[in-house]
Amino acid sequence: MNPLIAPSVLAADFANLQKEVEMINGSAADYIHVDIMDGVFVPNISMGLPVVEAINRYANKPLDVHLMIVNPENYLAAFQKAGAAHITVHSEACPHLHRTIQSIKELGCKAGVAVNPHTPIAQLEDIIREVDIVILMSVNPGFGGQKFIENTYKKVHRLAKLIVETGSHAKIEIDGGVSMENARKLFDAGANILVAGNFVFSSENPQETIKKLKNIV
Amino acid sequence: MNPLIAPSVLAADFANLQKEVEMINGSAADYIHVDIMDGVFVPNISMGLPVVEAINRYANKPLDVHLMIVNPENYLAAFQKAGAAHITVHSEACPHLHRTIQSIKELGCKAGVAVNPHTPIAQLEDIIREVDIVILMSVNPGFGGQKFIENTYKKVHRLAKLIVETGSHAKIEIDGGVSMENARKLFDAGANILVAGNFVFSSENPQETIKKLKNIV
Amino acid sequence: MNPLIAPSVLAADFANLQKEVEMINGSAADYIHVDIMDGVFVPNISMGLPVVEAINRYANKPLDVHLMIVNPENYLAAFQKAGAAHITVHSEACPHLHRTIQSIKELGCKAGVAVNPHTPIAQLEDIIREVDIVILMSVNPGFGGQKFIENTYKKVHRLAKLIVETGSHAKIEIDGGVSMENARKLFDAGANILVAGNFVFSSENPQETIKKLKNIV
Amino acid sequence: MNPLIAPSVLAADFANLQKEVEMINGSAADYIHVDIMDGVFVPNISMGLPVVEAINRYANKPLDVHLMIVNPENYLAAFQKAGAAHITVHSEACPHLHRTIQSIKELGCKAGVAVNPHTPIAQLEDIIREVDIVILMSVNPGFGGQKFIENTYKKVHRLAKLIVETGSHAKIEIDGGVSMENARKLFDAGANILVAGNFVFSSENPQETIKKLKNIV
Amino acid sequence: MNPLIAPSVLAADFANLQKEVEMINGSAADYIHVDIMDGVFVPNISMGLPVVEAINRYANKPLDVHLMIVNPENYLAAFQKAGAAHITVHSEACPHLHRTIQSIKELGCKAGVAVNPHTPIAQLEDIIREVDIVILMSVNPGFGGQKFIENTYKKVHRLAKLIVETGSHAKIEIDGGVSMENARKLFDAGANILVAGNFVFSSENPQETIKKLKNIV
Amino acid sequence: MNPLIAPSVLAADFANLQKEVEMINGSAADYIHVDIMDGVFVPNISMGLPVVEAINRYANKPLDVHLMIVNPENYLAAFQKAGAAHITVHSEACPHLHRTIQSIKELGCKAGVAVNPHTPIAQLEDIIREVDIVILMSVNPGFGGQKFIENTYKKVHRLAKLIVETGSHAKIEIDGGVSMENARKLFDAGANILVAGNFVFSSENPQETIKKLKNIV
Repeated sequence: MNPLIAPSVLAADFANLQKEVEMINGSAADYIHVDIMDGVFVPNISMGLPVVEAINRYANKPLDVHLMIVNPENYLAAFQKAGAAHITVHSEACPHLHRTIQSIKELGCKAGVAVNPHTPIAQLEDIIREVDIVILMSVNPGFGGQKFIENTYKKVHRLAKLIVETGSHAKIEIDGGVSMENARKLFDAGANILVAGNFVFSSENPQETIKKLKNIV
Repeated sequence: MNPLIAPSVLAADFANLQKEVEMINGSAADYIHVDIMDGVFVPNISMGLPVVEAINRYANKPLDVHLMIVNPENYLAAFQKAGAAHITVHSEACPHLHRTIQSIKELGCKAGVAVNPHTPIAQLEDIIREVDIVILMSVNPGFGGQKFIENTYKKVHRLAKLIVETGSHAKIEIDGGVSMENARKLFDAGANILVAGNFVFSSENPQETIKKLKNIV
Repeated sequence: MNPLIAPSVLAADFANLQKEVEMINGSAADYIHVDIMDGVFVPNISMGLPVVEAINRYANKPLDVHLMIVNPENYLAAFQKAGAAHITVHSEACPHLHRTIQSIKELGCKAGVAVNPHTPIAQLEDIIREVDIVILMSVNPGFGGQKFIENTYKKVHRLAKLIVETGSHAKIEIDGGVSMENARKLFDAGANILVAGNFVFSSENPQETIKKLKNIV
Repeated sequence: MNPLIAPSVLAADFANLQKEVEMINGSAADYIHVDIMDGVFVPNISMGLPVVEAINRYANKPLDVHLMIVNPENYLAAFQKAGAAHITVHSEACPHLHRTIQSIKELGCKAGVAVNPHTPIAQLEDIIREVDIVILMSVNPGFGGQKFIENTYKKVHRLAKLIVETGSHAKIEIDGGVSMENARKLFDAGANILVAGNFVFSSENPQETIKKLKNIV
Repeated sequence: MNPLIAPSVLAADFANLQKEVEMINGSAADYIHVDIMDGVFVPNISMGLPVVEAINRYANKPLDVHLMIVNPENYLAAFQKAGAAHITVHSEACPHLHRTIQSIKELGCKAGVAVNPHTPIAQLEDIIREVDIVILMSVNPGFGGQKFIENTYKKVHRLAKLIVETGSHAKIEIDGGVSMENARKLFDAGANILVAGNFVFSSENPQETIKKLKNIV
Repeated sequence: MNPLIAPSVLAADFANLQKEVEMINGSAADYIHVDIMDGVFVPNISMGLPVVEAINRYANKPLDVHLMIVNPENYLAAFQKAGAAHITVHSEACPHLHRTIQSIKELGCKAGVAVNPHTPIAQLEDIIREVDIVILMSVNPGFGGQKFIENTYKKVHRLAKLIVETGSHAKIEIDGGVSMENARKLFDAGANILVAGNFVFSSENPQETIKKLKNIV
């Protein structure tokens, strides 16, 4: 099996999202990754519901919505309605993570949990069987274009082990600084989905770059 | 003098902002109004810095950025850098409003304060001489397409009176539910700038609608 | 017209609310006042939804629910469903007071705004026509049995004047330290509804006490 | 040894708590479980200090008070004074959990820590010897009548192991969805105290139901 | 009557507070002003309880403690115990200002309320008779050495008028950018107490500077 | 190698910090420990930037600054500028701990993370290689003079093991209740730095006490 690729529109041309989405539609990408930042959970404000709706009008790949926001439970239904197929919340923002994950699934979406670079995998022990996706942050959330944190490989290994041990079906998604140099190694360590932002959108031929990532194996 | 018109991109096609901005560029509009919502100060998450940057790449009218966010002082420099010409903060979100207004002006932007529908004009007594713009919310902030609150006329009158009495140079901007039906009356009451979202973007000919609003007098 | 009397169950016997409610049912009281405190907006935790539901199962007078809580907008529907006929929120807890008041009315309840002892009446200038009730706190909210604040009379006068000037239909409700000594004076100043807690429930004959308050004029 | 049973008054008739408490007094129950919810830590507001005081006036079993509130340290003394024999706080609400536990013990109460369904047992490693009770939430806190989460058995096993390894004397209490079907299995896994709400109060003969739970072994 | 002078230790040599306090002891100053900043209400962290205690060990003038902190009610008793004679809280930080002021007075301290540069005097209408001191911020709180805001004169006039009209005994204290140039004008406008930081401590002869301020009339 | 000793100025004479710092300068101490408390993360307000600056003017040992504050990322640059050589933040206050640690290092300071008494060592698994210092709290942060928590030895062992296993270079620092009785045992367990407050400053000869602690081995 090849890695699943989720280009992040955070690095796209926001003046022409239809065109960008159509480029992704025509590519080998599997999902469209959308980074929602509220300026409170993370030190940046990126985009919100009307942008997701606009992307959804043209997308023919599932929207992989990553909520970097406080109190995400308040916005789950709105993002589902705006077109999200996956909704991922941060473990650091959810004192009632189990309930939040259930709420996402009751909306008919795939449910994900994201963990920051310093958050141990062991935190997921009692939720791993409930989630469809775990996003391992390989940079600190808030900005595109950051350098990949090398410790991520160890976390992928530990998470893959936890998934096997618990019989979870969760997919491992890596978000931040993904490039041709680390993609293969991440995949080998157990990663299933690779988010790629600048690496795709700053490349000369984004569709070609997506294809190369997809065929890294 | 005619009213100044600020079409709000909250009602625009987010999949094709370049085209929408070019439409505004070619219209009689004076500013481009951008509504930033964080999901904490208001119950909606709209758009953030990368969207403002994208708009700014194509805009030839000043960006009138309306921050419906908590702790706006943390993001003033970022929005200025992203292209804001005006930055307006909410009085309800600013325990240190005077400092926040000074910070906006030190960045070289016009500084505005917005007040919610229930907030009395008298709250502005000691800041009115410092601001370039007062946004009177004529709907509750958070969503486009809401019904105009009739009490707004009284607030325009009171604000216009306060401005004259204090020798302030502040312009009065009305945000929410503006249409041909109330635009003239608002202008007569003392309003200088009219924000128009759905009324412009849902109309058959947005440029024509902007022109009509502009020539309401 | 006589004053309307709203005995506050905060002073009732919580072990036998059915009996207490039946006592009120059989009295001259007009409403049953219910004080909801969350331990965050006020320094006390009193009672919540299951208590309101229980009261409502037996009450034949409208429930006058006073929310001393942060973010009351999150609980409006739940309190309406639990049986509230009136819902009053605190101006100090509502940065979007106009929206909150509209939401209460859309639920089919009478909508009230409460102001703390230090909050000026002028704060209500732009919301007074929207509300059905204004609660003037004549003690600091959080506890029963406190001493009446004498400055309240002035606030009643100012509020009565604002109501007349704006053509509002709002009723003036006084909450805290009400007794036979100040009831008449409050009524004369313009108060319409008197909340009475300990004064009623600690009296020998609560129904008689309610009747006396009612017939104070 | 048989399990200890703690009927939760959240499911009782709040209009007649004296009667409900007397029913528990006359039953085989060991404690009276009281769920305090503030609407901030959990999405429900249940009951507070005056309700605990009322229960305490009639109870002859120790009150097992479960604080589902933010900043519980502010209310420990008040709940002790209102009659709490046990006070349990949530690990997710306590950045200074060790101090909070000490404070409860200094008040002369048994001290408990509760963990949400997703919170790993390993979080308790350095506090387990300090606490008298650990509440494992087997539903998400906030509402009665929810479905038991099956992962709870694993957590009971892990917690029982941690208690043995560290020489702790803590009792394991299970809260949420307890019924005859899972009570035996929970007890076998190592649980000591079973909270039961709807299962007891919705049954035809609550005292009989309590007895059956008690004699599950 | 001459103005009362309160040198602010924020501008003193923190390595030698005993010496600085003794300088003030030997001067014509009336109070020692102490600025407590928590980094949350204001964007600076200055000093706290152990510093106040240290000052108090040597001071023979009353300590005029200005709390620029959130939730000041949590620290009133501690500052009283540390030696505060006056405690002033910010109106912007106190949703229950009346209770907070009462609490200060019950501790045996003079009670003050401070208002930020943008906060209207009318906010004080219902609390003015309860307070001993009103601090008008003539700079934005958080830092020493800022430029005096000219609008302050108007606020002094309005506040002096409110004090007369209500029969309040409150003293007017001015904090920020006070110097020989504005001291006379402030005093003439109605100010009673002048806080002076850098102006005193950066002068060649602080005692002489204090004396000059004192004798400005 | 001997333990490194960091006398905590929280126990010093704040009226004469120059003298206290000079005492430390002339002692065998390695660092000067400075406890910054904001009254929000911990229930005490201690000292802030001007105090650190004052200490730094006289210190010839590196300042070991311990931030017991919320949102420490807002104040890192200010404390570095004020003279901090080490900056330690609390894991319980940092949802983005990895970023915060990077920010400290980019300022040219040694970066530390502190954990409260109840926080497990396993929380540090993915950050341990990034930090220069781990402060294990051996009392609950907020006050000097508290009793040492015996469980700390186990945490030192576990942390020392984690450091070896991960190849981290982090030093282990113990803060709270350190005395001659436990210093040796802590050092043997793997501690590198001992903070000592009252034990040093309340002793008859602080320099001698520091020397004894230093030569405990």
